[in-house]
Amino acid sequence: MTRKLHLNAFLMGVGHHEAAWRHPRTEPARIADVRHYQNLAQIAERGKLDSVFLADGVALWGNVRHNALGGLEPLTLLSAIATVTDHIGLIATVSTTYNEPYHVARKFASLDHISGGRAGWNIVTSASEAEAHNFGVERPAHADRYARATEFLDVVTKLWDSWEDDAILGDRAHGLYADTGKIHPIEHEGEHFRVRGPLNASRPPQGHPLLVQAGSSEDGKEFAARFAEAVFTAQQTLEEGQEFYADLKSRLAAYGRRPDELLVLPGISPIIGSTDREARQLEQELEELIIPAYGLAQLSHMTGIELGEDALDRPLPDIPVETEGAQSRRKLVVDLARRDGLTVRQLIARLAGGRGHRVVAGTPERIADEIQEWFEGGAADGFNVMPPILPGGLADFVDHVVPELQVRGLFRYEYESRTLRGTYGLARPRSRYAPQGEAELEVAVAG
Amino acid sequence: MTRKLHLNAFLMGVGHHEAAWRHPRTEPARIADVRHYQNLAQIAERGKLDSVFLADGVALWGNVRHNALGGLEPLTLLSAIATVTDHIGLIATVSTTYNEPYHVARKFASLDHISGGRAGWNIVTSASEAEAHNFGVERPAHADRYARATEFLDVVTKLWDSWEDDAILGDRAHGLYADTGKIHPIEHEGEHFRVRGPLNASRPPQGHPLLVQAGSSEDGKEFAARFAEAVFTAQQTLEEGQEFYADLKSRLAAYGRRPDELLVLPGISPIIGSTDREARQLEQELEELIIPAYGLAQLSHMTGIELGEDALDRPLPDIPVETEGAQSRRKLVVDLARRDGLTVRQLIARLAGGRGHRVVAGTPERIADEIQEWFEGGAADGFNVMPPILPGGLADFVDHVVPELQVRGLFRYEYESRTLRGTYGLARPRSRYAPQGEAELEVAVAG
Repeated sequence: MTRKLHLNAFLMGVGHHEAAWRHPRTEPARIADVRHYQNLAQIAERGKLDSVFLADGVALWGNVRHNALGGLEPLTLLSAIATVTDHIGLIATVSTTYNEPYHVARKFASLDHISGGRAGWNIVTSASEAEAHNFGVERPAHADRYARATEFLDVVTKLWDSWEDDAILGDRAHGLYADTGKIHPIEHEGEHFRVRGPLNASRPPQGHPLLVQAGSSEDGKEFAARFAEAVFTAQQTLEEGQEFYADLKSRLAAYGRRPDELLVLPGISPIIGSTDREARQLEQELEELIIPAYGLAQLSHMTGIELGEDALDRPLPDIPVETEGAQSRRKLVVDLARRDGLTVRQLIARLAGGRGHRVVAGTPERIADEIQEWFEGGAADGFNVMPPILPGGLADFVDHVVPELQVRGLFRYEYESRTLRGTYGLARPRSRYAPQGEAELEVAVAG
Repeated sequence: MTRKLHLNAFLMGVGHHEAAWRHPRTEPARIADVRHYQNLAQIAERGKLDSVFLADGVALWGNVRHNALGGLEPLTLLSAIATVTDHIGLIATVSTTYNEPYHVARKFASLDHISGGRAGWNIVTSASEAEAHNFGVERPAHADRYARATEFLDVVTKLWDSWEDDAILGDRAHGLYADTGKIHPIEHEGEHFRVRGPLNASRPPQGHPLLVQAGSSEDGKEFAARFAEAVFTAQQTLEEGQEFYADLKSRLAAYGRRPDELLVLPGISPIIGSTDREARQLEQELEELIIPAYGLAQLSHMTGIELGEDALDRPLPDIPVETEGAQSRRKLVVDLARRDGLTVRQLIARLAGGRGHRVVAGTPERIADEIQEWFEGGAADGFNVMPPILPGGLADFVDHVVPELQVRGLFRYEYESRTLRGTYGLARPRSRYAPQGEAELEVAVAG
């Protein structure tokens, strides 16, 4: 079987470009309208994409004066999307730093049941101070957040396993609903959590909802190598993409995992036109709508350095890149400015499309060329597609880039599975509490 | 305008009777099937009911060996229900003891946006030890739980108010998305919580999603008088119902509220037949399916006293009723056994239908008579309808009891509002951060 691309549609308000809300092809009044997001997911499903993804944070960050922020909470939204779609995966960000594992295990189990096995969890540790201040604490250190996240994952996966797959008997005649010998208290006692269990939901259809992650720090990459099954990442050049890909895949063996048990999905913001000129025109329209004050605030958020309007037409000042937290994104931004010799204003324009993710403007063939080059060049198992404007940019991708990828034999024509794991080509984990099955015993004997 | 009944459909798995899952008219395999619940809500909406309600706890309690437990998480489920209904209110239980106010404010704001103003929150403080043990703590004392709940409500309502209604400008031409002077950090600093805010969601369509509560202890009733707009309660006799109703309404003035700002909705489990004989037959079918071991476990949960099978055919032993926590439910159970001179087996049968809520078996006219008597007799503003089997018992109520109530002029023929507040006849709260509007200034001048 030929290796096939995996494509995720990253849905964000009315588009990933920071000026999307000002563009005549968007409707910013719809950022809290569930039908807008249902429509986006249906467009993505029309294109046979693997999944949609909703990012999240638990604070109002960014400057809402100049951008359409403050939409819907991802899990309630994905549940509403589940009911109008049949195949597409549904991935949401939830933080391990400001939540309890029992709630998170349960909500994703519930979404997995509601969607028939299409739930995925993008695990984040919440790097911002604004989030900490909504939960009465100072932001925990990077390493502490990852230590908590590691134990959090242990608890959540135990809870998902706490009902074996065949725990429900449903024997009305004898009045036996469940075999309680197959429903297990987890009795977790750790440094951060004490959780007795079991979960009050039966085992999710996927066993474990898909685990997704996006950290690029050392801790982040080790966490991904241990737990993640798909990784979203921002990479600007093919070489950087290849390096990240090889690095991450090489870390899997230490956790007893094969390279194909984790998919690497770099971000790409495709600015699509039927001619190169048309694509450049859309790019320029968006660029002209950028509000410098907003771009400066975003740049400050990514780099940790405050910059005023007087800095706009000068090169980026020297910025140390060894600080913890948003370090990897900071390094990417500084490298980009240095490599291409950009002024702050030019850098803002380059970041406006995808906050550090790669922006490619051109015809559908040109976008497909880039995707193919990365996919075949050892930099990607697929892409996290970040349309600059929504829904238009996603519809353009689905209607013009996807067919090109299909003709090239790189992407599916039809779904072959109803679950997210099945679509991503990943195995369904067994419950750790289940006795060894016959298949495994056979393997053990054969081995 | 004539006073009209308010009716809530309390949805629980395949029915409120503890043996419902064994009855041939139910399908227990559907307790984690979203379409089952969507269908229930659509039946309730066909009957023009005010709202549906999903109870919740954050532990697997009750004996899953003998009952169909472990369904879906209410907020993800209600969001999926919102998309297939247009008018009916959507109420979910969420605990203030094991959650953070920022998350709760946001999820209900999101559900309110998704449903176009139909979200309601049933506030509980989580009395069980099983729940505490899923969050690494011992169960906090009753008074401590209510103290936390009180501050929790303060934070959540501040967060819902943190965006004024007209904060969003959407001015593309000038690049002004929001008037940040109308989006307020809440800067809450209290005994239990420090929350900076603002919420990362715009103001919910209802201002505040509806606040519902069900505690019957002294603390519970004071909490209800201060915050709740609808109260679910278990009352066995008209006299007890009248006493509770008068007591609760009399407490409102101390919080500057009018009696009609809180609706009292006693529970009723209607066992409906087209003749009395048919109704008694359904009641008996269900009674015969009761598993004594399950009933004993439920009784132990309600009273805090362990009872063995040898106790089944004796009177209920003496049980002290002054313990905290589930005190009010315990008192109700003990009073019921004493009043009617029941053995433990008979008590279990009486509790099996509604866990202490009133069960009424009979024709639609007889059910309507009871409802009318309580409604006109100062014991209820409406009812929390708890069908013994689902969906059948709800369909019977909607198709046969509701028309009878309509003919008697007690219940609406059509919805008159798209929001839950509107349907319940309750006002939309203004943001506490908004300047006094013209209307209020006029009232102030006129007064």
